[in-house]
Amino acid sequence: MTEPHALIAVEMGIDTHQEPVVFLRADSEVCRAEGFNANTRIQISLGERAIIATLNVVTEAVIPPGQVGFSRIAWQRLGLTGGESVTLSHAPVLHSMSAVRKKIYGNQLSPKEISDIIQDISAHRYSDMQIASFVTACVDRLNSDEVIALTQAMVASGKRLSWPAKLQLVDKHCIGGVPGNRTTPIVVAIASAAGLVMPKTSSRAITSPSGTADTMEVLTNVRLSLAQIQATVREVNACLAWGGAVNLSPADDMLIRIEHVLDIDGVGQMVASVLSKKLAAGSTHALIDIPVGPTAKVRSQHQARQMASLFDTVGKALGLKVRCLITRGEEAIGYGIGPAQEAQDVLAVLNNAPEAPADLRERSLFLAAHLLNMAGQADLATTVGQAREILDSGQAWAQFQRICTAQGGLKAIPQAACRLELGAGHSGTLLAMDNRRLARLAKLAGAPISPAAGLRLHAKLGQALARGQPLFTLYADSQGELDYAADYYANNHDLFMIGEAP
Amino acid sequence: MTEPHALIAVEMGIDTHQEPVVFLRADSEVCRAEGFNANTRIQISLGERAIIATLNVVTEAVIPPGQVGFSRIAWQRLGLTGGESVTLSHAPVLHSMSAVRKKIYGNQLSPKEISDIIQDISAHRYSDMQIASFVTACVDRLNSDEVIALTQAMVASGKRLSWPAKLQLVDKHCIGGVPGNRTTPIVVAIASAAGLVMPKTSSRAITSPSGTADTMEVLTNVRLSLAQIQATVREVNACLAWGGAVNLSPADDMLIRIEHVLDIDGVGQMVASVLSKKLAAGSTHALIDIPVGPTAKVRSQHQARQMASLFDTVGKALGLKVRCLITRGEEAIGYGIGPAQEAQDVLAVLNNAPEAPADLRERSLFLAAHLLNMAGQADLATTVGQAREILDSGQAWAQFQRICTAQGGLKAIPQAACRLELGAGHSGTLLAMDNRRLARLAKLAGAPISPAAGLRLHAKLGQALARGQPLFTLYADSQGELDYAADYYANNHDLFMIGEAP
Repeated sequence: MTEPHALIAVEMGIDTHQEPVVFLRADSEVCRAEGFNANTRIQISLGERAIIATLNVVTEAVIPPGQVGFSRIAWQRLGLTGGESVTLSHAPVLHSMSAVRKKIYGNQLSPKEISDIIQDISAHRYSDMQIASFVTACVDRLNSDEVIALTQAMVASGKRLSWPAKLQLVDKHCIGGVPGNRTTPIVVAIASAAGLVMPKTSSRAITSPSGTADTMEVLTNVRLSLAQIQATVREVNACLAWGGAVNLSPADDMLIRIEHVLDIDGVGQMVASVLSKKLAAGSTHALIDIPVGPTAKVRSQHQARQMASLFDTVGKALGLKVRCLITRGEEAIGYGIGPAQEAQDVLAVLNNAPEAPADLRERSLFLAAHLLNMAGQADLATTVGQAREILDSGQAWAQFQRICTAQGGLKAIPQAACRLELGAGHSGTLLAMDNRRLARLAKLAGAPISPAAGLRLHAKLGQALARGQPLFTLYADSQGELDYAADYYANNHDLFMIGEAP
Repeated sequence: MTEPHALIAVEMGIDTHQEPVVFLRADSEVCRAEGFNANTRIQISLGERAIIATLNVVTEAVIPPGQVGFSRIAWQRLGLTGGESVTLSHAPVLHSMSAVRKKIYGNQLSPKEISDIIQDISAHRYSDMQIASFVTACVDRLNSDEVIALTQAMVASGKRLSWPAKLQLVDKHCIGGVPGNRTTPIVVAIASAAGLVMPKTSSRAITSPSGTADTMEVLTNVRLSLAQIQATVREVNACLAWGGAVNLSPADDMLIRIEHVLDIDGVGQMVASVLSKKLAAGSTHALIDIPVGPTAKVRSQHQARQMASLFDTVGKALGLKVRCLITRGEEAIGYGIGPAQEAQDVLAVLNNAPEAPADLRERSLFLAAHLLNMAGQADLATTVGQAREILDSGQAWAQFQRICTAQGGLKAIPQAACRLELGAGHSGTLLAMDNRRLARLAKLAGAPISPAAGLRLHAKLGQALARGQPLFTLYADSQGELDYAADYYANNHDLFMIGEAP
């Protein structure tokens, strides 16, 4: 091999998000000698450390001779502080992309091939385009063996929580697709008040306007380290943390980022994502909520049963006890959609407030009862009564406050800078709502990146509405985003179906 | 809507390849007011013109207040000259991505959905990640109705050549996968010398080390405008131009760029790509060469017949007479791989030089005879003799020179700066070569971006080799690239199979 080319590293002050970029002069010796072109993938090394980045070629005005510029993420990943001499070379051939191509053509991958792909993605060797291709190819073409292998590879890519042997650790997860379905904080409060141990780590939104981690971040600190999670659980039996902050299944977080951009969420990857997080967290039992509705993520009972069967198969193969509940998903749960709006509903239920949404309350009780039953506390008829008693008596609220205090304290819910109330176009009965477009509306308003953004429904299915009666309120942090969402609604009035008044 | 935000446009001197990027200060009023984040897709407008670009957020040191920076491609696409006041807003919702998601989940797309996707891609509204997802989803899941729709949408995305009515226009195409198979320049020279009209437009390499356009560019100017193509064909009955320079099927060129990065090439898209170019060029007849071999693009007779049937179906639906020839593809054709090396073989055949590769010559004659027969000149036995006579007598070479002269003159073939000859590891008979890894080797050496890069074989299948006897020579423009390719070969000696000598 030739000697690698050394250049001095400079920070460009450019944020290229998660894709590392380096900037090199077109007239630099290394560009000429190595034949680098714009968009080439190159390897930059500093001693033992190395990263792969995309090259942007720049004119001589941008960078002095003998230097190479770094985008923020490239700078961070290589651990630079400034002035270091780094070496550049062609990126090594990415062998695992052959396996991605194999999958694109519909062939089954071996556990080794899946593990190689996940290792390369974890090591940031894939470009965003390559991850997009992998994620797309997997959407509905992973069989159960591949999902088992993917789950194992994801667990292996990150850290694992360890707990005293023989301790039962229960967990719950909703596969999503129904806006506002924020039962987790309530279920964790009830179940842990009843004595179950729940080291709950949640993800951020993938294609929805909020994930449990986004909603909980409005109420307390969710960026707990592994040690903080263990300390919190020792102290109060449970936690409500963001999984991404503790490096549990980091490869999954990278896939989720790209799935988010493309707005896709495949079944096999979803099962692997959910179960890898449970396994990495050390769970022994997992309760999975699968809502079904015409505009939910799962549209038919048949599809729900298939998904439940995949969860069971993968859980069994990896030593995790899984129970799937197929629930109703015709309309948004509660009133709020978006992190802050959902947090408001969660607090109302926990406080037994008169304005608390009944559907969110009943759903949470149902799930908590199943968790208590799964963990062997009693038969389901008994645990149903037990869960209701814990919520009604205020024990769940007291337990929720203890969890938040242990994580750093309960925060005030942020208020949005801009709002817009929208009314029914005509009188009638609210017959249906389109969960997907409702979610899109909240996202266009800025959720979940702006926690206060989203919307609040003023009506539920079956409710009679007068013409002009408030239907929902939009919330956004800026007028631009509010207008963006309002424009979308102007072209999508039919996302609510209001039957003509008789 | 709020007033859009106006900022002064500045060129950043950064080449982001084909993906437009704009650079905005994190503390700019528009970032705060519109809620822009790194990697947001935004719309930038200048009067009636608008582009969609990806946002990179920068620190205040990089751009003065009140300005917005543009990457080279963003600057070009918006047609900026400097100092213009542009307005920024959120990118409109990309409705056609719903259709992409539908395809990702394996559903059939309507012609309208396919047309919407292709229109948005042509208008540069898709990010590279989104195109990567579309291309991946289509690889092996387009049925013939979808391929017909895709072909029509691609033709509609660009310009069309028009020719006098009743003129027969013949064309040929090889689906590729066999390195060095550069018959087109020879076939065009023979067939047009025989009086056929061939306005040949070719593509650049997709996943191979050279496309016909790359090889022809070594010999003459291939960037002809539509008017130049028509003038050349009027003058000398034929041309050998690059299709991408004339905006025939521009959407296809954008898909091909991403397929190249991902190293994939799906059948449906390939048929649409080939036939859309033929239709846009105004062809009435198309001859398709489908080489089959264990390491060619098409591996079995069955697969070749399926592909041929798709070509026939789509051709018939769109009024194009198609004939597919299934040919042998066990080994590279000729000796050269890479633009300049292949050009050398083409000239040797046209000149009836003693070192001309016999396989390239015979294959070209076979294809030319079929073209003459398709066009109704005579039965196949007669046209076989006719083609051979035209080549042997020097008429084909004279015609090829006329074509090059009409396109701007015959150029000298460039020489590579670096070369490395590699010998057989042991004595024996050359039994097999791996076309794919051979192609990868030439690409690692820099082909086709460096035209002089590639390799030259010194042996063909069945040949006896002594230990150390030259097997092939690598060519590269820089030592770095030569080393890169040589390193790959060091780990892939088995891409040539040499049987033990008795």
